[in-house]
Amino acid sequence: MKPGISTLYLKEDRMEEECGVFGGVMDDEENAARMACFALYALQHRGQESAGIAISSSDGISVTKGLGLVSEVFPDLSRIEGRPGKLVSGHVRYSYGPEGSRPENSQPLFLRYKHGEIAVSHNGNLTNNRELKNELEQQGSIFQTTTDSELLAHLVAREGSPNLIDSLKNVLPRLKGGFAYVILAPQMVIGIRDPLGIRPLSLGVINGENYLVASETCAFDTLGAEFVREVQPGEMIVITENNVSSYRFSDQGSALCVFEYIYFARPDSNLCGKNVHLVRKELGKALAKESPADADFVTGVPDSSISAATGFAEAADLPYEMGLVKNRYIGRTFIQPTAETRKLGVGLKLNPVTKIVNNKRVVIIDDSIVRGTTSLRLIKMLRSAGAREVHLRISSPPVISPCYYGINTPTSEELAACQSDAEKMRQYIGADSIGFLNVDNLTKTIGMKKEEMCLACFTGRYPC
Amino acid sequence: MKPGISTLYLKEDRMEEECGVFGGVMDDEENAARMACFALYALQHRGQESAGIAISSSDGISVTKGLGLVSEVFPDLSRIEGRPGKLVSGHVRYSYGPEGSRPENSQPLFLRYKHGEIAVSHNGNLTNNRELKNELEQQGSIFQTTTDSELLAHLVAREGSPNLIDSLKNVLPRLKGGFAYVILAPQMVIGIRDPLGIRPLSLGVINGENYLVASETCAFDTLGAEFVREVQPGEMIVITENNVSSYRFSDQGSALCVFEYIYFARPDSNLCGKNVHLVRKELGKALAKESPADADFVTGVPDSSISAATGFAEAADLPYEMGLVKNRYIGRTFIQPTAETRKLGVGLKLNPVTKIVNNKRVVIIDDSIVRGTTSLRLIKMLRSAGAREVHLRISSPPVISPCYYGINTPTSEELAACQSDAEKMRQYIGADSIGFLNVDNLTKTIGMKKEEMCLACFTGRYPC
Amino acid sequence: MKPGISTLYLKEDRMEEECGVFGGVMDDEENAARMACFALYALQHRGQESAGIAISSSDGISVTKGLGLVSEVFPDLSRIEGRPGKLVSGHVRYSYGPEGSRPENSQPLFLRYKHGEIAVSHNGNLTNNRELKNELEQQGSIFQTTTDSELLAHLVAREGSPNLIDSLKNVLPRLKGGFAYVILAPQMVIGIRDPLGIRPLSLGVINGENYLVASETCAFDTLGAEFVREVQPGEMIVITENNVSSYRFSDQGSALCVFEYIYFARPDSNLCGKNVHLVRKELGKALAKESPADADFVTGVPDSSISAATGFAEAADLPYEMGLVKNRYIGRTFIQPTAETRKLGVGLKLNPVTKIVNNKRVVIIDDSIVRGTTSLRLIKMLRSAGAREVHLRISSPPVISPCYYGINTPTSEELAACQSDAEKMRQYIGADSIGFLNVDNLTKTIGMKKEEMCLACFTGRYPC
Amino acid sequence: MKPGISTLYLKEDRMEEECGVFGGVMDDEENAARMACFALYALQHRGQESAGIAISSSDGISVTKGLGLVSEVFPDLSRIEGRPGKLVSGHVRYSYGPEGSRPENSQPLFLRYKHGEIAVSHNGNLTNNRELKNELEQQGSIFQTTTDSELLAHLVAREGSPNLIDSLKNVLPRLKGGFAYVILAPQMVIGIRDPLGIRPLSLGVINGENYLVASETCAFDTLGAEFVREVQPGEMIVITENNVSSYRFSDQGSALCVFEYIYFARPDSNLCGKNVHLVRKELGKALAKESPADADFVTGVPDSSISAATGFAEAADLPYEMGLVKNRYIGRTFIQPTAETRKLGVGLKLNPVTKIVNNKRVVIIDDSIVRGTTSLRLIKMLRSAGAREVHLRISSPPVISPCYYGINTPTSEELAACQSDAEKMRQYIGADSIGFLNVDNLTKTIGMKKEEMCLACFTGRYPC
Repeated sequence: MKPGISTLYLKEDRMEEECGVFGGVMDDEENAARMACFALYALQHRGQESAGIAISSSDGISVTKGLGLVSEVFPDLSRIEGRPGKLVSGHVRYSYGPEGSRPENSQPLFLRYKHGEIAVSHNGNLTNNRELKNELEQQGSIFQTTTDSELLAHLVAREGSPNLIDSLKNVLPRLKGGFAYVILAPQMVIGIRDPLGIRPLSLGVINGENYLVASETCAFDTLGAEFVREVQPGEMIVITENNVSSYRFSDQGSALCVFEYIYFARPDSNLCGKNVHLVRKELGKALAKESPADADFVTGVPDSSISAATGFAEAADLPYEMGLVKNRYIGRTFIQPTAETRKLGVGLKLNPVTKIVNNKRVVIIDDSIVRGTTSLRLIKMLRSAGAREVHLRISSPPVISPCYYGINTPTSEELAACQSDAEKMRQYIGADSIGFLNVDNLTKTIGMKKEEMCLACFTGRYPC
Repeated sequence: MKPGISTLYLKEDRMEEECGVFGGVMDDEENAARMACFALYALQHRGQESAGIAISSSDGISVTKGLGLVSEVFPDLSRIEGRPGKLVSGHVRYSYGPEGSRPENSQPLFLRYKHGEIAVSHNGNLTNNRELKNELEQQGSIFQTTTDSELLAHLVAREGSPNLIDSLKNVLPRLKGGFAYVILAPQMVIGIRDPLGIRPLSLGVINGENYLVASETCAFDTLGAEFVREVQPGEMIVITENNVSSYRFSDQGSALCVFEYIYFARPDSNLCGKNVHLVRKELGKALAKESPADADFVTGVPDSSISAATGFAEAADLPYEMGLVKNRYIGRTFIQPTAETRKLGVGLKLNPVTKIVNNKRVVIIDDSIVRGTTSLRLIKMLRSAGAREVHLRISSPPVISPCYYGINTPTSEELAACQSDAEKMRQYIGADSIGFLNVDNLTKTIGMKKEEMCLACFTGRYPC
Repeated sequence: MKPGISTLYLKEDRMEEECGVFGGVMDDEENAARMACFALYALQHRGQESAGIAISSSDGISVTKGLGLVSEVFPDLSRIEGRPGKLVSGHVRYSYGPEGSRPENSQPLFLRYKHGEIAVSHNGNLTNNRELKNELEQQGSIFQTTTDSELLAHLVAREGSPNLIDSLKNVLPRLKGGFAYVILAPQMVIGIRDPLGIRPLSLGVINGENYLVASETCAFDTLGAEFVREVQPGEMIVITENNVSSYRFSDQGSALCVFEYIYFARPDSNLCGKNVHLVRKELGKALAKESPADADFVTGVPDSSISAATGFAEAADLPYEMGLVKNRYIGRTFIQPTAETRKLGVGLKLNPVTKIVNNKRVVIIDDSIVRGTTSLRLIKMLRSAGAREVHLRISSPPVISPCYYGINTPTSEELAACQSDAEKMRQYIGADSIGFLNVDNLTKTIGMKKEEMCLACFTGRYPC
Repeated sequence: MKPGISTLYLKEDRMEEECGVFGGVMDDEENAARMACFALYALQHRGQESAGIAISSSDGISVTKGLGLVSEVFPDLSRIEGRPGKLVSGHVRYSYGPEGSRPENSQPLFLRYKHGEIAVSHNGNLTNNRELKNELEQQGSIFQTTTDSELLAHLVAREGSPNLIDSLKNVLPRLKGGFAYVILAPQMVIGIRDPLGIRPLSLGVINGENYLVASETCAFDTLGAEFVREVQPGEMIVITENNVSSYRFSDQGSALCVFEYIYFARPDSNLCGKNVHLVRKELGKALAKESPADADFVTGVPDSSISAATGFAEAADLPYEMGLVKNRYIGRTFIQPTAETRKLGVGLKLNPVTKIVNNKRVVIIDDSIVRGTTSLRLIKMLRSAGAREVHLRISSPPVISPCYYGINTPTSEELAACQSDAEKMRQYIGADSIGFLNVDNLTKTIGMKKEEMCLACFTGRYPC
């Protein structure tokens, strides 16, 4: 099952998605804000630092946002019901580093420019943002946030056209990188996907009438909406009441981020028509073939590796057991063990089940590994619970290159140090054996060609 | 996996545990409050309405408590660090009905009586509480709460002896029902288990020196403590620094609540030496034999039925799939769907995975069923996701009698109406077939004799 | 003007009132909770630590309370509107020491006993509480709070009569000290004043129909109610819908706490038919005659000494100036100056006005003085603002004996050390001269005989 | 005494100041954030909607701000201590209308532009802001707030010079209206006052070394700083460590807002070398001469009119009494009376003192009157308390013209309707007589020439 609250809080050794976006026309004004909240609940796994909703009403666009989970920012609808409207957008944000926790950076970002008001939400990263920012600053722009949302707005504001769509047509070809934007304007919602479709964005419809876009299809399921199709790489979708239209601003092929399959997306979402849980289970099966292990049972790191672990168990014809139990009540803020209590063996988030593990040979499946620090702790835990052997299997290749498309990764140097050598990694983390899925098996199992995916973090070959 | 936050919030059609208790002597004053928090994190699945910690310091006993999760009541240690002491106790409460949410009823309950101060925590229910309360009221007692903790304290206060242990020896034989008490006194922590051991309570030790008691063994794992043994039915355990002693106030045999195995306990806890996950998996296997189903795959209701579902899948040689995905971010308070949005198909907490379910014959495993209202919704969900057939299998027998030992169940009449007839139930919930595990197979699989367990909810035969 | 928020927060060198009580029958259920809040706003100056409201509805008595100001505990009516009823009571508490801030001690205190439910609020102190408590503990009573409310309830519960009024008639003669109780029962509100009327309690009526009691008459003004009369010393008032009746349980005369005139009561309240502001102004005039000062102007310590200061100025024919300005935004919690910033001269709560004070001879009026620590700081402030001479005048006598009737005072030893000698006090605080109002002038100015007031803190002669 | 919390909450019929600003170099990094808080406590009466502090540290400029009182936004220093620095600035905001409560509009406003980072705080209003904004929008600027702070930043960013001071020299001559800006840059704090000095700004020094600016001198007193001089109209003050320099960008004379004397400033502040309390007292004396009243006593509307009322009483040789008492515990949020409770006479914020007022002829002093709605209520209150005659005297002239320099006033039409005719006003509010201070007496009493003050609201003659 997908990341879940606790994954984040573990500050685990994982790659971190930045955001989830959503927007569209709702069936009626009464329920629009409520529906936007529901969509954000569904996308919450893509970002837990801040949440926000924008609504276009007769009084203009209003944005309500704050730091925290959707349920914390919107404990009820009181903050967003004042100015009802059918057109809404929303955003959840995961953000790393000191910049990340700045309230100013929470989204959607509201802006006024000469031709009116807009609210911008984005997921991803522009690779040429510094260049664009310098150019804008030279022309006298000021920046109040560090977001690429503000950057896009500046570019639009400097376009001559009073027509937002025309301005975007001029501006979008200048953007490089991996991104999905949702722009709420007074009369329309615009969804934009980067030229290579690195970041995901899908189109759905409610009641066959009103369209919406979201980072993942699970948001459509939650809202009772139908999936229509994925927004194409380099496509801009313009949604108005009872209508939708499409513009292409680029035509370079496709390179969906493979980590969406491996770790980011919720298991009930579909990407390119494939269900994420089923893909992960197949990755587990392929891993069992590529890197088998002689063991008594298979277990997975909850929650994100459960799919792959059951696949591995089926293919290896080994029982699947619950070797580790996760505490679901360890929230974002909780009292930390001190050095002394840690010495006692205090383990708050994960508990190895001694009765299952003791004196057994365990295969533990994780979906990915970056620095290895989490794996080291897990293996120590399993050994202290009596595991005779611990075989670590990763349902993806080693990460060797940093991501520039909106994912938080270590630098090249750090990655080189960690991942150059599987044997060194094995020794560091203390496993009896270690195994990865290789890139060929990864892509073959997913069922896409290498050139149709962004595999840069595994190969160092960047698609743009 | 065990209940988890969302199970509670679903206000599902489940039997509900009331509380978790904890107490003991910690290694040092510095960490005692922190350790108590950790223990409560581990027991949180037994109650999410309120949390509290009592500490015995040189200034007397102080209690800090409030409504909410442990992490909400104790976001940090600032509220409990002022009066440090090694002896601590703690409590988490699930409480139903209007009385349940009264802040006064949160525990531990602090009391002064002629011989000093105590803090009382309890889990369970006295079957003769009304009788005892009437007797006390006739003697002039006043009640500020509706808890059995207060009742025990009144009885103790009316005993002549200045010695708390002597008073308890006199009082405890008068208590009937299923209960576990933890009493914090200035110099000792006392753990008490009901005469039949209906409610669980275990004894552990930290660093081989200092003892503690807890409702479940997972609290020991979390604290890095060793499990020593279960507190016996009718036993009172007295813990002082570096010492522990035992008193029996009853000797009637044993009747552990079978629902602890089926649903309440965390899967990594052990009961009577058996791991809960493994027991549940065996129940799933037994169910597959007793009530097989011709289907394409097996899925479980997350999280509590996953163990049984994987057992069923293994025994039936069917794949285990993630047919339902749970949203882990739906917290205790969240914006509810309205009638209108519900009509759209809004489904916040669970999402059926169409790609997995569509056109398939599904076996869905649930650990228990009371009124059937949740099952009805689940089956509707699966059918709307395209399931060709839905076969419901329950890894326990039908519930036909209410519980009087601390579990929230419907009345006899309600149960009779729901559960008298499996075929009627099947029709009500809309399954293609329904199957339960019978009482014989249940007890045989657990590996205990019928007379060693409380099976009253399944059989109507009450152990006391 | 009366204490005000900041006085409390200054943790000034003042005597501290404990509580304000209120109760009665409101005109209609819709507004009863709201009216109770309004009454507590009016009584807030009598206690800022906790606030609570009890309502008697068809579902029984419910109490809602918490730590903080009325506006913090009841930011809206959501917590108290669920169970509407016309009979209400309320309480605000000031409480000193570690016991004071215990949430358990907030009131009204809800209790069940053999004959039903009651909610008890009290102001004051029983001088024989230890004796009564011991007696009750010997009989097996347990105590969950340290309040005299609980004590009264225990006594009532141990009475044989099912009639609350009869029980109270038996119990009340046993209570010694200074107290006002308000008891909410399902069908009535009972107001009780101590045998000597040390603590104040008044009777009012709304719309000529429904009666209410409150610690001070300003609560009646706030509610638009009419003042009827003071509850008599040793009187119990029983209020039911459209009716009121009276019982005397003692007949010993009268000894109203003189500090209610001097400092506690709000200036718009009346005590024994006299307006508090006017009394204070007369005290200021009497002080000017008894202890004149040759100076350029008069100023008062805001807010409580303004009335006396304007009286002094009028009698002395000196201008009244605003020599000190109080910051009204320094709340209960605010960032404190450190030693270093204090060295800079940081003065948050009071600011001397240099343009007014510089090079002037100042008379500063304070209503009372206990240890002198506040006066010392004030005089230092005035001198640093350039005052040429500072003459301190206190509109009450020196405090030489502690209070046992519900007021927080230093011990006898401390008082002896501080107040035995006016000249020593003058030197300690650094004034050019000091003057007090003597006891004769105090009582003469108020217009009551010495034996009609409690003057114990000034004379050491305790009325009971 | 100055407005105080309650005045604001009364949403009284008053002119409303917008903001208070502060900035400077503190003595050491340890205390800088703390000192900024202290300064904002002192300026809190100028704005209670939001508060914010900016600090320049080695990591750049960081801003912490939020909606609420200083004590609510900064309950402790935890949010601002992370990045210590000596250079700080701060802001409190009063803001009316729906825009006012937007969190985005809280200040200081943080911005990055091509030459670095700045944080801008402002008080007042640019009269040419629409014109400047249009010009900027045409050049492609986007606006995220509705503040004039953002406007100034855009203008600076579009200047060519890398030197902030040079850019400001170019930009400032373009700004029209009444304003005070404080700009925090990495190495300096800049204070700017509008060309006519309509809005106040003063220069102070701590320990004779480090300079600071603040809207009012009471902030210096609070910090233990020395007043140096007022910032001149059209002057820019640049403060760096141990240094201060000055630039004039305009030289048009002076027109200080007269309402600062009448109502806005704290009574312990000085303006143009005159103490505000003393000025107000003189205004009261002048009023007594210009518009005497035959009455029994004088009272003032608390808190802002107390100074004038005592002056009136002295000059008229009438006693000054506390005819109205204000509840100091009615906070920003409190439960409102409903129509029904209002009918009962519920009066939460002010209470007329019957014993003082009854059967008396009362002169009530208010500092200003706009629409008369508050006066109407006050006079009704006094009459219901038995006043035989009520004579309203206003220590300023009638307001006939709206303010364009940062004060919230009704429109010209509304003012014309209310204030054209004193006799109509008297009838509307129900006073026995009404009297104002005329413009000549106002200016003569203050001791300044008409052309040295902004009297536009009284005369309709706008200084720029």
